[in-house]
Amino acid sequence: MKILLIGASGSIGKILEPELIKNHDVVMAGRNSGNFRVDIADTNSITKLFEQVQNIDACICVAGDCYTGDLFSLDEEKLNIGIKNKLLGQINLVLIGQKYLNENGSFTLTSGKMADKPVKNNISKAIVNGGLHSFVLATSLELERGIRINAISPGKVSEIPAFDLINSYLKSVEGQINGEIIKVNY
Amino acid sequence: MKILLIGASGSIGKILEPELIKNHDVVMAGRNSGNFRVDIADTNSITKLFEQVQNIDACICVAGDCYTGDLFSLDEEKLNIGIKNKLLGQINLVLIGQKYLNENGSFTLTSGKMADKPVKNNISKAIVNGGLHSFVLATSLELERGIRINAISPGKVSEIPAFDLINSYLKSVEGQINGEIIKVNY
Repeated sequence: MKILLIGASGSIGKILEPELIKNHDVVMAGRNSGNFRVDIADTNSITKLFEQVQNIDACICVAGDCYTGDLFSLDEEKLNIGIKNKLLGQINLVLIGQKYLNENGSFTLTSGKMADKPVKNNISKAIVNGGLHSFVLATSLELERGIRINAISPGKVSEIPAFDLINSYLKSVEGQINGEIIKVNY
Repeated sequence: MKILLIGASGSIGKILEPELIKNHDVVMAGRNSGNFRVDIADTNSITKLFEQVQNIDACICVAGDCYTGDLFSLDEEKLNIGIKNKLLGQINLVLIGQKYLNENGSFTLTSGKMADKPVKNNISKAIVNGGLHSFVLATSLELERGIRINAISPGKVSEIPAFDLINSYLKSVEGQINGEIIKVNY
């Protein structure tokens, strides 16, 4: 498969990439590194990426900034960091990328446990991850040409065995599941 | 109790208001009607509302626009209708209103079943409602002075017995629950 991995230099990307390249043709994209540059908060940048990288079977996104901080430090500006990056960024990847992906391709987005098992100081992540989960459920009903979509929802990445994290992404990319939220280590 | 009902002229507001006024002092606010005008997409408007209406025990929001349409009609502009209104509007009500609410007060927000049981043409509502659910879970951990927060997640409002809809809001306002998503009729 030809896989587009967005956010390859991040904490999850660094774990996934060496494993994915064993069996797949992996194109890496990132804001500051990779084969192609992309800022997922910018729809023009996303369109340019899909125009440049053709013939994609699987698009994996492990990118997306989000604010961390307590309730009393939150305001609309801080909320918008995660909404524009991790939430709308990943949503726009799908809205734009669906036109470019190969038939029977797949999107694998990354959310996180704050959606359903939040802990203090993570309200912004909760909003973003919860929105992503429902986006995946709803969008899986409407994608055409056999294109699938799933989300990986990891617990604290530093505490997840690499094997479990890798397998969750492979299950989405190589399997046949659609509209699933794969919870990892929580 | 003194209850601030935002969106009193909407489909849910019209059902709630006659019931709430039986036992409570209800202040109604809306974009175009009510005792006070408020546009929840505008943080200045929200602040002004809480400066004007003092001594609130319960804030109920049944307001919030959201786009309806299929996957292929969606773009960032259409997504932002719901994000700025129903999602960030209700979130900003809490972020700002928490400073003004009476001790042991409560927020009752309105989401909807598209968060967890979406049907086609409702991706935008799914994102907004899913984000709201996780916001309520996360924020319930951090509110101070005994302030509670819950969300009512109704199915199709026209198909819900008025009694069930009213009771879900009363459960949040008059009860002691915190951080709950009350699903109604789905």
